[in-house]
Amino acid sequence: MSFEEATRPIGGGGKWKGDLVEGWDIFGVTNGGYVMAITTRAMETESGGRTLISATGSYVNPATPGPVDLDVQVLKEGRSLSTLRTTVSRDGRDLAYVTGVFEDASRPKHEGDVILGDPPELPDPDECVLIVPADDAPIPPPFTGKVEMRSIPEDVESIGAGDGGPPRSRGWFRLKDGEELDAHSVVLTADAFPPAIFFSNLGVGWTPTIDLTIQVRDPQPEGWLACQFTTRFVTDGLLEEDGEIWDQSGNLVALSRQLALVPR
Amino acid sequence: MSFEEATRPIGGGGKWKGDLVEGWDIFGVTNGGYVMAITTRAMETESGGRTLISATGSYVNPATPGPVDLDVQVLKEGRSLSTLRTTVSRDGRDLAYVTGVFEDASRPKHEGDVILGDPPELPDPDECVLIVPADDAPIPPPFTGKVEMRSIPEDVESIGAGDGGPPRSRGWFRLKDGEELDAHSVVLTADAFPPAIFFSNLGVGWTPTIDLTIQVRDPQPEGWLACQFTTRFVTDGLLEEDGEIWDQSGNLVALSRQLALVPR
Repeated sequence: MSFEEATRPIGGGGKWKGDLVEGWDIFGVTNGGYVMAITTRAMETESGGRTLISATGSYVNPATPGPVDLDVQVLKEGRSLSTLRTTVSRDGRDLAYVTGVFEDASRPKHEGDVILGDPPELPDPDECVLIVPADDAPIPPPFTGKVEMRSIPEDVESIGAGDGGPPRSRGWFRLKDGEELDAHSVVLTADAFPPAIFFSNLGVGWTPTIDLTIQVRDPQPEGWLACQFTTRFVTDGLLEEDGEIWDQSGNLVALSRQLALVPR
Repeated sequence: MSFEEATRPIGGGGKWKGDLVEGWDIFGVTNGGYVMAITTRAMETESGGRTLISATGSYVNPATPGPVDLDVQVLKEGRSLSTLRTTVSRDGRDLAYVTGVFEDASRPKHEGDVILGDPPELPDPDECVLIVPADDAPIPPPFTGKVEMRSIPEDVESIGAGDGGPPRSRGWFRLKDGEELDAHSVVLTADAFPPAIFFSNLGVGWTPTIDLTIQVRDPQPEGWLACQFTTRFVTDGLLEEDGEIWDQSGNLVALSRQLALVPR
């Protein structure tokens, strides 16, 4: 089953249904980026096909495989920007809320880009370590078998230890079988990699996301995505994880930030 | 009127009223952090006095001085975390949505902090430039007269020009008359400074926030706050602005990120 099929919601007029497909989970909980991608697809349609530029998810109860209800509300339809919100629920119990901002791609824009940052320096994808699910351990989780994620060897070797530098999770991402990428797969990418803190001495375990925001700067990237996730501040059991996603030509694809609880 | 008075909502049981006080505006539009602080106060009470750790605002229509309705909904009340949402409206027209995450301060936490970053290097507050409203120009806006904000001379000199480095807005912040700080004034701080891109050659003008997230790491900071806001990626007329807020002793107080439109 392709990613597009696994994230295809059915419905219209604000009332949608999604199916959280078996296997997209981590410690038994369906991946938050995967859940978000189902909602951004529904909101994209409800926006009249506008282009996703920002998605923020707030996760209140763990999602597990199975059907979900998606209530999509158009909060604002402006000349150039639309804001929509989806409530993800099952049996009347809310699991997550996702706010999506969509733009009319033809809106008048400031011209001239500024890029004061560089893609992560990664070895070629075939020199990186393909993350595959473990049969006899909770990690790598089943979810990793649904995508093609290649972490850099240096990170994989430092799992649970780290070198005292910023906890970082770096590697390449693409969909299985080279499936074409879109804004929704970029959303997935932003929550796909092992948490940066796994590559430090902070412990490896369930790291629940409280909220997650993704700015999509290129909704149609091509090839492998070069990804880097970094945590700089762990205080009082909370951490932020900042992500940068680039394409193979060195163009910025997305920025992400999440707030999560540190494993205990 | 103190900040606490200017952001004190009245109500209960999910139905609150706020007053956007005259003078807290920029280009005629009430400051987004100020609006957010009114909502986080209402949500704090509705959460039973839990502690704000994250607030995300989505701004859909410009707010102007005057009364607003605040509909507060408890989305989830968990053992250690609560998630609430406020819809800010006037005459039935929604202006903004704010999601707040609050924690039970006594929840069991991972012990041991990691701080891989430093406060900005700032001259003493009295060597910085107090930002005061201009009588005959749109900027500095009236809002700046409501707080005490001191930008570093180097930034002020580069307004509208910049030196080609990352656009940065740096300086000290406190409330007027040394009013005590709390989580809500930290929220205000995250949206108070002139946009980082003003200190570059990207143009000075109305830079509307699309969404803004603040992670509050210290809800009771003391003294002056050392602030730094940076923009690294401007693409297709969109920019992110990342903020770090520290206290005078070098402790992290908050992280912020916003998505905004570049002035045209």
